[in-house]
Order: sequence, then C-alpha cells, then structure tokens
Amino acid sequence: VESALKVSNRDRILERISASEDDLYIMGQAPDGPPDVEALAFAPNPLVVMAPRDHPLVGEKSIPLARIAAEPFILREPGSGIRDATLRLFEQHRIRPRVSMELGSNEAIKHAIVGDLGLSVLSLHTLTLEGPDGPVAILDVEGFPIMRQWHLVYPKGKELSPVAQAFLEFALKVSPGMYERMGRLWPDLAQHFAATYETAPAERRKKALPSSPGC
Amino acid sequence: VESALKVSNRDRILERISASEDDLYIMGQAPDGPPDVEALAFAPNPLVVMAPRDHPLVGEKSIPLARIAAEPFILREPGSGIRDATLRLFEQHRIRPRVSMELGSNEAIKHAIVGDLGLSVLSLHTLTLEGPDGPVAILDVEGFPIMRQWHLVYPKGKELSPVAQAFLEFALKVSPGMYERMGRLWPDLAQHFAATYETAPAERRKKALPSSPGC
Repeated sequence: VESALKVSNRDRILERISASEDDLYIMGQAPDGPPDVEALAFAPNPLVVMAPRDHPLVGEKSIPLARIAAEPFILREPGSGIRDATLRLFEQHRIRPRVSMELGSNEAIKHAIVGDLGLSVLSLHTLTLEGPDGPVAILDVEGFPIMRQWHLVYPKGKELSPVAQAFLEFALKVSPGMYERMGRLWPDLAQHFAATYETAPAERRKKALPSSPGC
Repeated sequence: VESALKVSNRDRILERISASEDDLYIMGQAPDGPPDVEALAFAPNPLVVMAPRDHPLVGEKSIPLARIAAEPFILREPGSGIRDATLRLFEQHRIRPRVSMELGSNEAIKHAIVGDLGLSVLSLHTLTLEGPDGPVAILDVEGFPIMRQWHLVYPKGKELSPVAQAFLEFALKVSPGMYERMGRLWPDLAQHFAATYETAPAERRKKALPSSPGC
C-alpha cells in the first residue's frame, strides 16, 4: 500500500493531530485553537443548503433562514465541523432548526434528502459526482454559502516524509485550478470562491511551505 | 432528535452489538459468528467491480479476475466487510490484487475511481444517486457480483423499543419492492437478486419477527 486515507470528523482529526499519528491532514477548515499547526488553504469548501430536486423552495431567490427552520432538518453527528458551522449560523440569527435526524455520513444525508426526510447543509463537494442537475438541489438561502476552505494541515515544525512533501507541493500547484474549476461548475457561487482565494495569497502560502528534506 | 444513524464499518458494528449500544443495526451481510443475533434479510446488496466510465474494460463481457488484478486496486480500510469479502474472492482464485490505496469511505473511493487512481469493489447501492449512467461504471467480471443481502440485526432476545419495532416492520413490508426496484434499475444483475430473495423466504422472516410489546 502506497498511501492510506482515513475519513473522519473534525474532532477525531484534532485528536489524531495532537497524537501526531499521521503525515498530513486535509481539513474542511483550518483549526482555530490548539494543536499548533501549519495550515495551507488549497481549495474552496462552501457549505450550502440542500433539498430534493422537486422541493417547492428549489429555484426561489434569497430564502430567509427562518423559512429553512420550518422544514425538518438533518444534522451530521456531534464532532462534525459541518454540524458546528451550521449550528453557529443558526445561533447567530437566533433561529433554531427543527432537527429530525442525525446521520453519521454525508452520503447517508444525501440519501435522506432524496428520500424526502428533510433539508440539510453539506459541502458543495459532496455533489461533484452527480453534478448540478442531480437528485439533490441547492437552495439559495440568506447567509449561504458558508465559505470555508480545504486546508492541508500538519503539526508545526514536523519534518514531512518525502511522500507527504510531494503531495503537499502537488496540491498547492493545482490549487488555482481548483478555485477556477469550482467556479465554472457552480457559476452562481463563483464570486464567493474568488473572494476566499484572495485571503490565501500565494506569498503567504509559499512562505509556510516547508523546504524539502536536504535543501 | 427522533432518531440517529451512525455509519461504521463491520468490525465497529460487531463491537457495538456486543456492548448492546443501540436498538437496531443495518448490516451489509449477517454476522456469521458471535455475538448471537436475529438477522432479517430485507434487500439485495451486490458487490460489483467499479471503473471510471472511460476505462478500456467498460463494456467487455466476462472479464477474468486475473485481468482486474493487473490494474491498480483501491481497498476499504481494515475492519470493513466489503474489504473482507473482496479479498476472500481474490484468495479463492489464488490471485492477488495490486493494492495502490486504502481509503476509509465509499465516497472517497468513488472519487478516486473517477480520478483514475484505480478500480475497486463496492456495493451497488453506492451508485443509487448517480444511476447507471454516472461517472462510475460497473465491469462484468467473473465471480461478480458477490451477492450479499442487507440485514436488520438486533441482539437475540432483546426487547425492541417501539420506534425500532416500527422501523423493522416497515423495512420488512417494503422489502419485496426493494428487490423488484433494484432489478429494474440494474436488469443485467436482476437474476442474482431474485436468487437471493428466495433464500430469505417470507416464512422464515415472519417467524423471526418479534411480537410487538404488549401482544
């Protein structure tokens, strides 16, 4: 096996970073407290409200958040960064979603949405394989997308293995193309991607990039 | 919250059953050893070989397993029932897959397939949202599909909560329709679904169904 990828929620990943268990982490948002890490943004990670394709709100413009709170709502499990970001937005507006279910994976949530069990908030990336015309639709809701960025994360000062180093360099090289491609796939959201890209300028990212072993 | 669903791999679920942590489990195949459980089949769960849509083997008939072993192959993590069933089939034919990657979720594996990182074996259900014409294609490989069935599982003798009881009765009621619908979606595989359905006859399933509390 040349490489292994574990998919976990945010809390679990923070535990693994603290225990220094892996070479490199991909996180949906940079950690904002300890453990002390280097975090390099490399792709947009917008969270959007999703509904079944035939839902009456599909196609409506600037839907108020309170309207979403009137629908049954599906949440990720405790420990999920998507769950935390979603609940934070509702709290800021002093609105409480009507949570009908907690599901432990994005895939299960998409199936529940299509099965008419409720709306949910997930990363736009979960729709990549179905594309913009699949069975799950995006709603235009006030306050959304919640703009986050995918980050490459590793413990501060850690010497990266050659494989991790190569992966990191590759990700940063293709990064501009990822912002561009996301913008082409979802033109309604492109303005948001461009804005976040500027907050992660090449200079800062270059500076944070560790030198290769032996240089 | 009315209900919560946790998605875990087979080993983790067997641990949770032993610890009697939940009301009811949905498993991709019935446990074949301890812990002692009731297990009711309710839907077909075929494992199939997946490839990117533009792979040269797409459309070929009765591809030998040895041909698959020549391609880079992506496996689920240790503890996964899909991984175990896949490796068992290769072992039976004394063929070793060329494992290039281990990924901890079906969704990650589908993305890796589309990204041309290798072939893999997954449950046909992972293609439900994209349908038969999505970016992931099914290969016609000798020995496949590996026919398994989704089971509702609970510890033997356990008194089910009313919600779990209702869910179980509902699943068994819609079960015949699930075999039929899978057969319509994937006509090439329909014969396999019909065969397994007969191994789970209504009589046995009825007998195993616990009586409602108070009856």
